[in-house]
Amino acid sequence: MPVICKPALAVPENVITLDDTLELAQRLHSDHPRLGLALRLIRNTGVLKRHLVQPIEATLTHPGLTERTRIYVEQATRRIPSAVDEALRNAALEAGDIDAIVVVSCTGFTMPPLSTWMINNLGFRSDTVQIPIAQLGCAAGGAALGRAYDFAVAHPGANVLVVSCEFCSLCYQPSDLEVGNLLSNGLFGDAVAACVVTGHDRPGLMIDRVGSRIVADTEDWISYEVRETGFHFRLDKRVPGTMRQIAPELEKFVAENSRHVDELDVYVIHAGGPRILDDLSMYLGVKPEKFDLSRETLREYGNIASAVVFDALRRTFERQDIPDGASGLLAGFGPGITAEMVLGTWRGNS
Amino acid sequence: MPVICKPALAVPENVITLDDTLELAQRLHSDHPRLGLALRLIRNTGVLKRHLVQPIEATLTHPGLTERTRIYVEQATRRIPSAVDEALRNAALEAGDIDAIVVVSCTGFTMPPLSTWMINNLGFRSDTVQIPIAQLGCAAGGAALGRAYDFAVAHPGANVLVVSCEFCSLCYQPSDLEVGNLLSNGLFGDAVAACVVTGHDRPGLMIDRVGSRIVADTEDWISYEVRETGFHFRLDKRVPGTMRQIAPELEKFVAENSRHVDELDVYVIHAGGPRILDDLSMYLGVKPEKFDLSRETLREYGNIASAVVFDALRRTFERQDIPDGASGLLAGFGPGITAEMVLGTWRGNS
Repeated sequence: MPVICKPALAVPENVITLDDTLELAQRLHSDHPRLGLALRLIRNTGVLKRHLVQPIEATLTHPGLTERTRIYVEQATRRIPSAVDEALRNAALEAGDIDAIVVVSCTGFTMPPLSTWMINNLGFRSDTVQIPIAQLGCAAGGAALGRAYDFAVAHPGANVLVVSCEFCSLCYQPSDLEVGNLLSNGLFGDAVAACVVTGHDRPGLMIDRVGSRIVADTEDWISYEVRETGFHFRLDKRVPGTMRQIAPELEKFVAENSRHVDELDVYVIHAGGPRILDDLSMYLGVKPEKFDLSRETLREYGNIASAVVFDALRRTFERQDIPDGASGLLAGFGPGITAEMVLGTWRGNS
Repeated sequence: MPVICKPALAVPENVITLDDTLELAQRLHSDHPRLGLALRLIRNTGVLKRHLVQPIEATLTHPGLTERTRIYVEQATRRIPSAVDEALRNAALEAGDIDAIVVVSCTGFTMPPLSTWMINNLGFRSDTVQIPIAQLGCAAGGAALGRAYDFAVAHPGANVLVVSCEFCSLCYQPSDLEVGNLLSNGLFGDAVAACVVTGHDRPGLMIDRVGSRIVADTEDWISYEVRETGFHFRLDKRVPGTMRQIAPELEKFVAENSRHVDELDVYVIHAGGPRILDDLSMYLGVKPEKFDLSRETLREYGNIASAVVFDALRRTFERQDIPDGASGLLAGFGPGITAEMVLGTWRGNS
């Protein structure tokens, strides 16, 4: 079965702290009727700092969709190489060994996809298969691992590179003033993540099973409105409550492999916000500290969309104390509302 | 090995003929310095008619990206169901039998993808896996079959529904006046295609192998510029000449299965334009009439982007005279420049 090797993460150099965020929100929205609520929600995220591709002054301007797209490409091509290099090193592979690239990004749009630029500039083979996914939002990290699994099983011995490129700050919309927008402005961060899924013998999380679940009729709870100004994020206030519906789906998914969801060793959970993690641990009957590495990602980088699960998984690799044969569940959540799930078994250095 | 069942196609009711197109081009661009060339290129496409989601008057206006996206979703949700129903009937399956939906569309953008709407409204299961591909343009038809193959092999017994939803007329940009744009305005058409790829025993094209090739450093030959007004199609005049580089790649791909590319029985080729078909048959050493069904698609519907290969394959199924065991090559071409290829064996009614 394919193995997920240790992910790499590259965060940009511009840092904004929680205090900066609160001060900004107060300054920009001093006359907002629900400013108090927005500030409380931002404080409750537990996001202590975030990394952004541009300094804050530039982040807060909207130079138009043409210019934003130019910045997106410039930043992506500048920041993807180091994450890719490290992910390849982590898998003891070179670019020429890669058979497919899954590239996920919901915060900018190009055609052809970023994988085409990578093939032309980073040494990948001309027969590398491109699997670009732009429409699954934060769930795309889990989905990317699912598609990498499919490819690696269908093409025995294949090596798949997964790249998540999320510059959420390039979707900042100054004119969006719902409380959900103000919260999002204080929650999301930028990052590039990469990892290899390989059919070869490597230490990492060996994938036993992948799967997806959608919560019926929640299609417009997390969505983009596509406008002249680009992607406008719409977040329904019912979203944080959806773990009540998602928890039993995770339970069923794990049970199909004859395991109990509350007895697994490792959990890598999308840290969309603090309540998602708190509710999910409660509904699953898992101790809150089992999700601590996801909380670390949220605290240090904010919600970095599809890259969250890769960073939380990277932190899991760094723990060093996971025994061979330990069981692990990785789950990404996003628009749909969907859960994208991976069940695996830890395989140490042999 | 997974089998591609007979595709279904749904074209909209608004028809524009070649004469209409030429007259329009003359009227709209009477003072264009290269009008003569544009008219000649449009006449040479051999596109006799196209089907559009809106009447021509509405097609020629640009109501802004917000409204265009609304129209895209309205038209997609209206036109996808009949194509999906027919594709499912062609495979003797029901919506509840489908394990994954690959939905490809490069002419509008939504998050979540159209597959989410389908799952909520057309009877698909809540654990249906969504594989949305928006960034591979015309090559996405071939790529979708590749990913459907991966999924069906990785999950034995799985049924995958592929949907291609292309409303090229919703990317019409009145302000784009390059000769390549004028040509595109007379070349592209609208359609929805669907088909099932199944691991079960069905008549159709059994997939032996899938693969991709990219032509180095042609990344900006076919591309979208993403602007306030949406996707602006950029077509380099060198594109029609790329079959010289792509033909040897098709040859190598087929040779890896110990076959000669010029000796196959059936060819399903992306009809991007007439020269692509003419050049490719010449470089491959295949008689031009072997591509006649692709030419039929082009003549009757125009270049319907990722849906072309599905319509050409549908016409192949309708020929009735293909013997069991016949060999077939399907190839889509698009931005990158990429070729997305499927090699298969015909399996008749058992």
